[in-house]
Amino acid sequence: MKKIAVILSGSGVFDGAEIHEAVLSLYAIEQEGASWHCFAPNIDQHHVINHLTGEDMPETRNVLVEAARIARGQISDITTLNPAEYDALLLPGGFGVAKNLSDFAFAGADCTIHPDIKRVCQQFADEEKPAAYLCIAPTLIPLIYGPGAKGTIGTDPDTASAFNQMGGEHIDCPVDEFVLDQQRRLLSTPAYMLAGSISEAATGIQKLVKCLVSIA
Amino acid sequence: MKKIAVILSGSGVFDGAEIHEAVLSLYAIEQEGASWHCFAPNIDQHHVINHLTGEDMPETRNVLVEAARIARGQISDITTLNPAEYDALLLPGGFGVAKNLSDFAFAGADCTIHPDIKRVCQQFADEEKPAAYLCIAPTLIPLIYGPGAKGTIGTDPDTASAFNQMGGEHIDCPVDEFVLDQQRRLLSTPAYMLAGSISEAATGIQKLVKCLVSIA
Repeated sequence: MKKIAVILSGSGVFDGAEIHEAVLSLYAIEQEGASWHCFAPNIDQHHVINHLTGEDMPETRNVLVEAARIARGQISDITTLNPAEYDALLLPGGFGVAKNLSDFAFAGADCTIHPDIKRVCQQFADEEKPAAYLCIAPTLIPLIYGPGAKGTIGTDPDTASAFNQMGGEHIDCPVDEFVLDQQRRLLSTPAYMLAGSISEAATGIQKLVKCLVSIA
Repeated sequence: MKKIAVILSGSGVFDGAEIHEAVLSLYAIEQEGASWHCFAPNIDQHHVINHLTGEDMPETRNVLVEAARIARGQISDITTLNPAEYDALLLPGGFGVAKNLSDFAFAGADCTIHPDIKRVCQQFADEEKPAAYLCIAPTLIPLIYGPGAKGTIGTDPDTASAFNQMGGEHIDCPVDEFVLDQQRRLLSTPAYMLAGSISEAATGIQKLVKCLVSIA
């Protein structure tokens, strides 16, 4: 059975991993006959957002501890993730990717990636193991794969422009499709960058995961 | 389009709504051509559990605010839920049902249901609108539907015994099936009371939602 490492960035679209994307990804991985293995960094979230009001909450929450909610406790510290033991990598989206795993939400094209995340993603790239980035997560791609790496965040012009500014080659893509950079074995799909419903996000994610597992 | 009211009890299996069950339910509702509308009580959670370690956390969290994470903010206070405006009701499981919506986790067969939840569920029952209870949520059934109401929490003998002690008629059921009390238009499925994977939970939930929407 192929083993897919999944990196979560918290639990909740506005300050962590997008929950629907995460669950649909884990479900799709099972449906394709592979197994999922969740990881997250043991760091504080950038901030905590009240998902009812959109306001900041005066709290501190830990990315790994909150991500454990999505994984029903079946999750490990990212520092224990050895890419050699897995066949492929997947990152769901959510603002957590742009606030906790990197600072893209604040620095845009000048962003940097948390060193533990960078190390792991870079190793999957260097070992030429397939990797999938969903929603806003493709903003990490140019800093890992270098100039010319192809990816999509859908059609948002500002985010696409930042992707290109970092050296990537952005490709517009509808929500129910995905982009494959064949040379780099690199997949991306817009998910909730464009989706207006769970079903819309699910279609693109299922197609992406089917391809990811098949080439893993 | 049929409108399904969904009651969430937080966000996370150990102190709130079971996230996989909630997302799979919302997705299945869309797939069956209906729309979902989330509600939760605006009350403090019974407690907050660290989902990585299983330990209590010295925090206070609000059920509605946390449930908003699953609903991407598209959620309302349960006190605004008028059953007359909806075609059916669905409650995913998770310990939140037995800790926040009721006190079944602590009082067992002597449990009571939070009055706002009781009012809403009772009204769906009184108006003979179909209702679905997943996982541990069927423990609410006997107190709403009275003696003889049929339901399943899978095969756990202690929970089944409490269900019968409260006046219900428990029916053992495998994870990939559901129980329909035809007379009461009442559905239940074991989900994570038995499921060993997301796919196992999904199969029973999809069958249940298909039936729920068709009779709504």
